[in-house]
Amino acid sequence: METQEKSVPQTKTPIIDRQQLLAHWQGHRSLTRRVIGLFPDDKLFSFRIGGMRPFGAIIQELLAIAGPGVVGLATNEWNNLDENLAGLDTKEKLLSAWDETTERINEWWPRVPEERFQERITAFGQYEDVGYCTLLYFIDNEIHHRGQGYVYLRYLGVAPPNFWER
Amino acid sequence: METQEKSVPQTKTPIIDRQQLLAHWQGHRSLTRRVIGLFPDDKLFSFRIGGMRPFGAIIQELLAIAGPGVVGLATNEWNNLDENLAGLDTKEKLLSAWDETTERINEWWPRVPEERFQERITAFGQYEDVGYCTLLYFIDNEIHHRGQGYVYLRYLGVAPPNFWER
Repeated sequence: METQEKSVPQTKTPIIDRQQLLAHWQGHRSLTRRVIGLFPDDKLFSFRIGGMRPFGAIIQELLAIAGPGVVGLATNEWNNLDENLAGLDTKEKLLSAWDETTERINEWWPRVPEERFQERITAFGQYEDVGYCTLLYFIDNEIHHRGQGYVYLRYLGVAPPNFWER
Repeated sequence: METQEKSVPQTKTPIIDRQQLLAHWQGHRSLTRRVIGLFPDDKLFSFRIGGMRPFGAIIQELLAIAGPGVVGLATNEWNNLDENLAGLDTKEKLLSAWDETTERINEWWPRVPEERFQERITAFGQYEDVGYCTLLYFIDNEIHHRGQGYVYLRYLGVAPPNFWER
């Protein structure tokens, strides 16, 4: 069965288009929002495993990346990454900031130039990579940290949402 | 600043091409391989947090998906998902199966028809979705579970690899 004979010609049909990629990102963000919502309020900024950060601090990082990140992709003007969102110190504030970021992404996404995805960029003035890699990093980093949040929840006796519910 | 005026026309330039997507997938798989390698042998099939599966069982799931998954994407012929890989019960066997899957993905990837990514498919005879969503699910599911593996490692006092090292 496993021969190389049936190799398929490569064309330029998009594997995924812009709107699909936006929906994919926002679908993941929607799931992360539900994980924040399920997290016990009194553990959000205190509970940790193995010296890792509390889930609230992780969410601050994700907020520091996503909103400024989409503006950076659109404009290619980058500020340094500012993870000092210490003011977002309750679940309610995190969720409110999360929703603002959701709107910001929807607003700026159409303004990301098509060529940006294949350009070399220096995200946040520091992380040099091709545009699509930078964007996928934003998404993958969220999946990675949310997976950690699932373990925190399980440890705390809370059932996380199904991974495939976006 | 945040007006809709500078909206960029949508064209059909690919955001990410096939070879880039393959490299992205294999990059993640390379990182997961390192996490398997770092996991203490005597904890791989026994250590768990909050009732979750041991990391070895998670890796069996990822192996059950990736190799048969890429063949399914290429042929659109799907067997049921078979996570019963109980024979892969040592780190050495997992790593060996991981490497075989790496080769299998490289071999079958060029044979995935271009149109498959935008077709509705029923992966493993059960999971109906558009092709690119199914593929991204394979990748994202691995990121998600590997993130859980990071917490296991931290709990066990082992420093996981940096997330960005692929």
